[in-house]
Formats: sequence, C-alpha cells, structure tokens
Amino acid sequence: MKKKVVIVGGGFTGLNAAKILSNRKEVEVTLIDRKNYHLFQPLLYQVAMAALGEGDIATPLRNMLAGFDNVTVFKGLVTGVNLQSKTVNTDFGEIEYDYLVLACGAQHHYFGNNRWEEFAPGLKNLAQATEIRRRVMEAYEAAERTNDPKERKKQLTFVIVGGGPTGVELAGSIGEMSRFTLSRFYRHIDPKLTRIFIVEAAERILGSFSPELSSKATRELEKLGVQVWTSSMVSDVDADGVQIGRERIEAATVLWAAGVMASEIGKNMGVETDRSGRIVVEADLSLPDHPEVFVGGDQACFTLENGTTLPGMAPAAMQEGNAIGRAILEDIWGKPRKPFKYRDKGQMATIGRNRAIVEIGNLKFDGALAWFTWLLVHIYYLSTFKHRVFVLMQWGWSYFTFGHGARLIVNKDWRFYNEPKTEDNERSD
Amino acid sequence: MKKKVVIVGGGFTGLNAAKILSNRKEVEVTLIDRKNYHLFQPLLYQVAMAALGEGDIATPLRNMLAGFDNVTVFKGLVTGVNLQSKTVNTDFGEIEYDYLVLACGAQHHYFGNNRWEEFAPGLKNLAQATEIRRRVMEAYEAAERTNDPKERKKQLTFVIVGGGPTGVELAGSIGEMSRFTLSRFYRHIDPKLTRIFIVEAAERILGSFSPELSSKATRELEKLGVQVWTSSMVSDVDADGVQIGRERIEAATVLWAAGVMASEIGKNMGVETDRSGRIVVEADLSLPDHPEVFVGGDQACFTLENGTTLPGMAPAAMQEGNAIGRAILEDIWGKPRKPFKYRDKGQMATIGRNRAIVEIGNLKFDGALAWFTWLLVHIYYLSTFKHRVFVLMQWGWSYFTFGHGARLIVNKDWRFYNEPKTEDNERSD
Repeated sequence: MKKKVVIVGGGFTGLNAAKILSNRKEVEVTLIDRKNYHLFQPLLYQVAMAALGEGDIATPLRNMLAGFDNVTVFKGLVTGVNLQSKTVNTDFGEIEYDYLVLACGAQHHYFGNNRWEEFAPGLKNLAQATEIRRRVMEAYEAAERTNDPKERKKQLTFVIVGGGPTGVELAGSIGEMSRFTLSRFYRHIDPKLTRIFIVEAAERILGSFSPELSSKATRELEKLGVQVWTSSMVSDVDADGVQIGRERIEAATVLWAAGVMASEIGKNMGVETDRSGRIVVEADLSLPDHPEVFVGGDQACFTLENGTTLPGMAPAAMQEGNAIGRAILEDIWGKPRKPFKYRDKGQMATIGRNRAIVEIGNLKFDGALAWFTWLLVHIYYLSTFKHRVFVLMQWGWSYFTFGHGARLIVNKDWRFYNEPKTEDNERSD
Repeated sequence: MKKKVVIVGGGFTGLNAAKILSNRKEVEVTLIDRKNYHLFQPLLYQVAMAALGEGDIATPLRNMLAGFDNVTVFKGLVTGVNLQSKTVNTDFGEIEYDYLVLACGAQHHYFGNNRWEEFAPGLKNLAQATEIRRRVMEAYEAAERTNDPKERKKQLTFVIVGGGPTGVELAGSIGEMSRFTLSRFYRHIDPKLTRIFIVEAAERILGSFSPELSSKATRELEKLGVQVWTSSMVSDVDADGVQIGRERIEAATVLWAAGVMASEIGKNMGVETDRSGRIVVEADLSLPDHPEVFVGGDQACFTLENGTTLPGMAPAAMQEGNAIGRAILEDIWGKPRKPFKYRDKGQMATIGRNRAIVEIGNLKFDGALAWFTWLLVHIYYLSTFKHRVFVLMQWGWSYFTFGHGARLIVNKDWRFYNEPKTEDNERSD
C-alpha cells in the first residue's frame, strides 16, 4: 500500500521534497499550491524593476513535475489541516494524508496596519511585482506629464520601508535605473533628480550582515543616490507619503519590504508558533507529537545549535525540502529519524551592477567580485529550472545596454466595455 | 518656427509616422498613447496562448523613440479633438497642433451586446491576452480538480466566436496545445478530449482568402481537433456557454474574435465614418476639408481603386504611417499632395506548426512552406523592434519541445490583505 504524501506549497521546500519523493514506488504525492507556478523568489525584485520578465523567473509547476508519474499537482487553496483525522481541507474537497508537508511560505506584514497595503505594496508574488513595476513606471509618466514642480517632485520620490536584502535591492535598482537608464527616455524631467529613501527602524540596514559590510552597502547605495534613514520607524503611510514620527516624506510611491508573517494555516492549527507566525518544529522538522507532519521554509521556526532560529532564505528552504523528503522515505523504510543539519552557505545582498556584499562565515567581501559571485550563484540556481542560456543572454544584454527593457505597464483590467470603476483602474489606466 | 505634429496612438501607423518625422528640424512631434508600449499585434495571440511572454512582443514606446530628440512621448488618454481650434483634449490638458495624425486603432465589438464581454473577452491588448491565458489555463486546472464528468466536459470546451485570422489562430493554438503539449502535465484528465469550436456567421471561415485556401484551413483545423461551425450566428453568450439560435454549446471558456469597431474619437468629431466607426479619408489619407489632419491604420476608411476599402492589417497600417509622415514633410516643403498608394503584400494566416495559408495576388500556397513564410515574415518584422535572436531562440525551443512554457496564471489582484471581493478575484484566485 502506497503512503499518501500531501505537500502544501510549491516553493523551494515543497518542490525539493516532491523531487526527492518522485518516482519512488513507496509513495503517492499530491502537491497543492494557490498558484500554478514555482517562483524563483530571490530574483522577484528584478521583475518589479523591469529587468526581467515574469516568465524568466517563474515556471508552471506542472512543467517541473511532468516527468514524475507519482506526483499529482492541484491548483487550489488549502483552508485548514485536521491533525486528528489526517486530512487537509481545500476549496475543492478534503484530501487524506499519511504524511503532510507544510511549506506555505510567508507574506509581507504591516504590524497591525493592513490598510497601509493599499499605499505600500509588498513583494512576494508575480502580481505584486507587476503592481510595483506599474507604480514605479506610472510615477515617471506622471512626472513627465505634469507642469507642477511640487507634483513632479512627489512623483519622483520613492520610499522603501525596510532595509533588509529586498529593500536594498529595490532601492539600488531604482537608483541605478534613474541614474543610468531612464535619462534618455524623458524630455521634460531629469530622472537623475529622483529621490529614493530607505527607511529602516533598526540602527543599520542589512542587520543580518556584519556592521562592516552593512556600512559598505550604505555607501554603495549613497553612490546611487539612495538616502538611507536608519533608526526611523514609520508611523503612518498614506496616498501621499510616509510619516516617520514628526518627520514626513511626500512620495507618490511607497514600497513595503519591512515585515514578514508566516502563512495563517499554522495559527489556525492550534500548534505552537513564534511571533512571526512560524510553526515551531522539532530537530527533524516534524511537528511536536505529530511525526507524520513536517514544516519547512519560511513557515517553519527551526532552532539552530547556537540558539537562534533559521532565517527565511532560499538555501535553508531548499535544504529543508530535501531533508523532509528523505525523512519520509527513511520513515517508511523503518529507519530512525535524523536531526536536520543546516549547512550555512553564507549570505549575500546585491545593490546594483558591480555592487554587492557577500559574507560566508568569516569571509567577507564586496564590490565587483561580490557582485559576480552573486550573479553566478543566482544563474546557477535559476538554471536548475529555467533554460540558463536565455536568462544569461538577457542579463548580458542588459549589462551592456543598462536596459530595463521590460518596463511595460499592463493595465489591471482587461475590459474595454463595462470597465469596473474602481480607484484601482483609474490609477492604472 | 517648427510645426507642431501631434500623433495619437503608438501602433504601427503612429510609430512609423513618428520615425519618418524624427530628427527633422522642421517639426516638433508629440506622440500620445494610453499605453506605454508599442505592441506587435500580429503575435498577440501567442501571448494569449502562453507561447510568448509579454515582453517578447511589446516594447516601451520611450525605448523605440529615445534617439529622436524632436519626439516627446506622453502616456495619456485623448478625450477629443477640436478641429476648429486645432487642439487635442487629453486627461492632462490641451495640446495644440499644426498637423494631427489620428491612429487610435480599433477595439473588438459585440454588435450591441457589450454585456457579453464579461463571458467572452476580445484580444486587442496585453491585459486581454493575459486574461485569455488565465481563463484557458484555469479551465484545465478546474478540469483536473473536479470529479464531475459534466463539469469536466464543460471546462474542457472552448468556443471561439469568429473565424477570421485571429479566431483561427486561437483555435489552432488550443488544438495544438491540447493534442501535443498538455497531455503529460495532467493526471486526471486527458487534454486530448478538449472540444474546440469556431463559430462563424458567414458561410466559410477566413472570408478574405480564396475559397480554396479557406477550405484547406478548415481541414487543417479539423486535424487539430477543431470543430468549425459556419453559417452559425451567436445569439447569446453567458457564463456557461453560447447560444446559436436553437443550438447550444456548454463551455467554460468563450473567446471573442468576431467584430471590430474603430476608436470612438472619430464618432465624436462630427466627421463621416463608416459602419465600423472608421473615419472616411481622402486619397492622401487626410480628413475632407482638413488637410492638416491625417487618419491611418484601423481607424481609417480608405477606398481602394477597385472600390473596396483597405482592411485593418499591419502592412497597411505601416504603409499609411510612412505615407502620412512623408506627406507632412512635403506639405511643409510646399510640395503638392500625392495620393496614398497601397502596395498589396498579400495576406496569410497560421493555424499551427507547419500549418498556414498564404495568398499573394494569384499565388496561393499552404502547409509547411506557407508556415515557414509566415514565420520568416513575422520574425523579420518583429526584429525591427525587438532583438531578433531572443525571440528566434525561444520559438526554436518551443518548436522542438512543443512547449507552451509561459503558462503562468498571474492573479489579477496583487493585494494580500483587504482583497476586493469581486466576482473577478474569485475567478482568478
């Protein structure tokens, strides 16, 4: 009798677990995802910044799992888990499991101010990347159209809330685009006048890196025209800008890269979660008292030997997926559970062309070498699911031309007649 | 004193006119478009059918016109034209002109039944192409999820209303995708059971071609599993299918490729239009009594020597744009007006890989040779604004792998919190 494995989420963890279990006669795998694609999230900001197209970093899950006859993919929404009856509730019915893998990831989080989302989109999926691209490009279009210097200044002001890797990548890209790419495209504005702010609550940006690299990154951002405000907690966001205590920045575009909260499924299961909503897991990534349930990726709270918890990073998610897949097989084979061992591959953040920082244990470097390291690592991992050559060529082309060629503003609404009259469509049309 | 030329619309006509006028010291050109991109419309169906990405067939207008210092681009909506005061009204103010070029194109048209749009989207821009892709791919996802054979049959039924080139291309693509590409991706359905209908009111499809080629195209469609219903007038469209008099087809997906209506601007100007809303123009493409106003592309009704009017095709739009640009220059130079002479380059339609028809005067051919002709012509024209090599490579790859790799379903709404609860979002999520 084959064991039924249900995997919720087709990100790095879910996909890697599915691959380990694929073509194994012991198991029958069902993978459920709200989306029909796997997303290479580390490069999502490049779609938002018009450097890559959606198809460059996303591939249908069905393509990736086509060769594995024991894997079934459903596009659907998981609404809950019943640990007692060992069933998953979805919007297309109940599904039974012998083993369950939860890898639903995380969402951006507004610390109790969800109404800010309207004014400051986060960056977790393709729809949001497209929305950010639309807002950034629309701001330049509006600046070019207006004759009012105040309005123009506001349109050319971009605030990024949060100075982690995503915030730095977004700010660096806008800096680079405005300083090098856009100048020749506009007649009435000088895109170099673009003001870009990173607003970070902590005392320095890129807090997970050493103070030395964090400071180097700040300098590189400044060279691209990015103004870094640290020790600055956003107290309000509205349609015209952000409030930081008694200070205020008027900006047409605010992007949110500050908080992260794990998928709600954990909260509703009655299991222990940390304050980011992540499910606390055992040393083997399983749920306490439920060895048949595993949690991985951004949804899991895994405590390392030094007492800290594993951050939400692609390498961690991939390793967890592999470990979970193996743990299920070994369980079926009657072997004892092994604790998950995280191999630290270091961390890196990119600021722009030839500007990045890399930290691997005690090894720290920045500048062009760091950027090439970043590039090679990302091309390597991207190539594991896309045709390396296309992306390489497009990047190569962009490198030589300083191009952000994917600057398409695609309207949100497709209707020509009976267009719904929402605030949204006014904005996008 | 430089003459002010205002061009409305950045399609083939507007873009070609702008190029002719570029870097000419006699004129100052302002190009206005609702979109920020130029679209290679002949391949739009490939984006809808997930064979190409949006960026492959669209390029920001600013990129294409960056080198021309006398050309200013505004993204904005033209709301009217005042022929007396020689001004164009836009949503960002009035703009004066000495010469005006109207090339606003056409929209799909429901013959007075605009409520059908909700159930049967047309295909004229990227947002619509994305919507069609979403509907087609969601139908397969829903079919895979359901256990109800009737529901599954409905989800696997696609009706294309209209048997012109676009309708044939859409139907052929779905036929090919369902017969060759999708089979290995689904576990619970056989995509080969997909039913595809072309519903055409006339007695044969592709009415602009000779009966002989039209009949060959019908046979090729049949080989791909497409059922061609001619002499069939759609009398109603709803959420569950189409009514054709007393006949009915239950279908989850209906696509509209039947009618076309020129931009409304013409209708509101008080000038003569034909029943498709196209503005009737003189032999030199100018407006009667207004030699300073030109109309081209799908918005113009130009009468050929044989008494018929020029159809809305890319080659005609390009030639008209060039002619208008030259006419403006010659006018400024004091030269007499020359009538526009259309050089008939023939017509072609593609049904699928190795399946196409070509008709150039009395020369008619079909099959693989016609398909390669179609491919070469389109790659050539596409390459005039995109980097030929990328598109060629992607097409080459698709050719060998039967891939429709861009099958991404991107949600319409980007919000995670406060998601607007419309029928739409339920459909797309």
